[in-house]
Amino acid sequence: MDARIVLLPGDGIGPEIIDQAELVLNAVAEKGGHALSFERCPIGGNAIDDFGDPLPEQTVEACRNSQAILLGAVGGPKWDDPTAKTRPEAGLLKIRRELKLFANLRPVKTFDCLMDSSPLKRSVLEGTDILFFRELTGGIYFGDSGRSTTETGEESAYSTMIYSTSEVERIVRLAAAAAMQRGKKLTSVDKANVLEVSRLWRQVAERVVKEEFPELEYEVVLVDAMAMHLISRPSTFDVVVTGNMFGDILTDEASMLPGSLGMLPSASLGESGPGLYEPIHGSAPDIAGKGIANPLATILAAAMMLRHSLGLEDEAADIERAVDAVLDAGHRTADLAGKGETSIGTVEMGQRVVEAL
Amino acid sequence: MDARIVLLPGDGIGPEIIDQAELVLNAVAEKGGHALSFERCPIGGNAIDDFGDPLPEQTVEACRNSQAILLGAVGGPKWDDPTAKTRPEAGLLKIRRELKLFANLRPVKTFDCLMDSSPLKRSVLEGTDILFFRELTGGIYFGDSGRSTTETGEESAYSTMIYSTSEVERIVRLAAAAAMQRGKKLTSVDKANVLEVSRLWRQVAERVVKEEFPELEYEVVLVDAMAMHLISRPSTFDVVVTGNMFGDILTDEASMLPGSLGMLPSASLGESGPGLYEPIHGSAPDIAGKGIANPLATILAAAMMLRHSLGLEDEAADIERAVDAVLDAGHRTADLAGKGETSIGTVEMGQRVVEAL
Ligand SMILES: CC(C)[C@H](C(=O)O)[C@@H](O)C(=O)O
Ligand SMILES: CC(C)[C@H](C(=O)O)[C@@H](O)C(=O)O
Repeated sequence: MDARIVLLPGDGIGPEIIDQAELVLNAVAEKGGHALSFERCPIGGNAIDDFGDPLPEQTVEACRNSQAILLGAVGGPKWDDPTAKTRPEAGLLKIRRELKLFANLRPVKTFDCLMDSSPLKRSVLEGTDILFFRELTGGIYFGDSGRSTTETGEESAYSTMIYSTSEVERIVRLAAAAAMQRGKKLTSVDKANVLEVSRLWRQVAERVVKEEFPELEYEVVLVDAMAMHLISRPSTFDVVVTGNMFGDILTDEASMLPGSLGMLPSASLGESGPGLYEPIHGSAPDIAGKGIANPLATILAAAMMLRHSLGLEDEAADIERAVDAVLDAGHRTADLAGKGETSIGTVEMGQRVVEAL
Repeated sequence: MDARIVLLPGDGIGPEIIDQAELVLNAVAEKGGHALSFERCPIGGNAIDDFGDPLPEQTVEACRNSQAILLGAVGGPKWDDPTAKTRPEAGLLKIRRELKLFANLRPVKTFDCLMDSSPLKRSVLEGTDILFFRELTGGIYFGDSGRSTTETGEESAYSTMIYSTSEVERIVRLAAAAAMQRGKKLTSVDKANVLEVSRLWRQVAERVVKEEFPELEYEVVLVDAMAMHLISRPSTFDVVVTGNMFGDILTDEASMLPGSLGMLPSASLGESGPGLYEPIHGSAPDIAGKGIANPLATILAAAMMLRHSLGLEDEAADIERAVDAVLDAGHRTADLAGKGETSIGTVEMGQRVVEAL
């Protein structure tokens, strides 16, 4: 098959890890006789520097005309000034919204050989394999917001968490369908004992599940309780669905379970059109340019891309097996290496994966 | 001294644990020559059953006329019907608001002898001693909320996260003052890279700290990153201040660190007037009436009450020492007991603490 892929290297370690993912993608494509073409476009802080815009129109256009998008990471202290007109993150939020990428999938699996570097005990972690569905284009991220000054001269600011029936339906439907393919268990997370918006979420989610997925084991958990359960019994969850803000917090919490952020990919999908794939870690400005960043999360994001956007399941599984093999062979980037273990750099890690393919 | 204390046993295990806390309070009061008088008032599900109101006016009045309030827990499946006119939690939210209890203090300390029952590794936990200040009467819990139906017949619901300058100032000031008495480090948690309301929070917090507490080591952390750091490096935090919703999630997450919810008290304080003290665990309907609930969190909440509302620091410390001694002597309620360890009941645990005083 032929496919046009947009690469968005972004800031910090972004370009370094995207390079390795591209090499891996080229290697599997060649093996399978597929023609992948790549176009690099600007996003984030460097796009602010060069174009005064964290998401230039040319980037949006290129993404629209592609089959899939692979993103490195955006942001860094250089663009952190709170009084700045725009910020790198605005580019990320805008592309999610422009391409209607309402479903953020985050698999959280523990790697047996990395479990000892987790802050959690092995006995708690064992068997953990969660797939999060975070709603990504609604909720408090995109609701009405503003500032006002009260009669007494006091300033106040607000942000609105808002969901409509159809927004809840489509993400719950996707999550429930995924659960049917996995462990047949779905957990919906809300704060319905306090928030009106969560009460709508809960009603709609329950209706979708009861009517369309009656075989699913379905449970509802409050967000505060979920923050506890993710630590105390992570292995009891299968698919978890929640809103944008709660998903942001809970998926980051869960990302600590495997012992390294450097292993976790994510996919952002819409109803149709290209999906966006990225590592969940940030741009790590402190180690940018040093050649020591871990490219594996980006490589695993590339595998998700082959699976979900290009329908290349075998090739995706090949990459995942290659990553496992490289880890099992004992190769570690600095973030994965235990005390006293030697580590390899970004480029060498990429090469090892290519060789293992 | 003389003091009038209102006891709000609430639902589930509430009455059982409040009984033990009362015995402990009576014991220290007698020892110190203080006269504490207690009045029991209804709140929560039982108050809905008896008065059709989770917080009857008589309870509010009694609380207003007291020096301090000790609460058990509210809620249970009996009152969980989503279509019900009111719920037990409404009583809790209303008393916080009525008494203007804007500051929720939650200490999270690890107990050496319980560390092995934590899901986290001892090496990660060691030295953890965090004091959370959660804003409790503002934010998305109390902002405007509602439902509407769009032109296309779609329903949507919203809840508004809103903060004013003075709301942020007073909680940050309290947290900063507490930090000055402890490790001199303050962490403010927000989501200023996305939310307008968080940008105001960040501005105000920084101004208060810079102007009034220049000696503090001050840092700002995004809520998603904080959800990670609480697991990966909990011992690096001293005092943490945040809004109502983020505080709800993060304090519950942090409550997993010590290995048992059954050890954690909390205090809710206003500018003046009585403070409200409670265990952070819920009403545990599954074990209610069985005499096996752990009363220690409530007993430790009673100690916080003596310290913060009655100025009886020595007596508070006495209770805390007694609890430590009972644990060190190996006594455990069911929730604390390891596999194969024998456990004691609610009443016996209360008695042990009284004896250790
Ligand atoms: C960078 C930030 C805007 C973003 C978010 O909050 O969605 C990030 O935390 C994420 O989870 O992708
Ligand atoms: C019961 C509920 C309304 C409450 C809250 O969300 O504040 C509880 O979770 C808490 O933290 O005290």
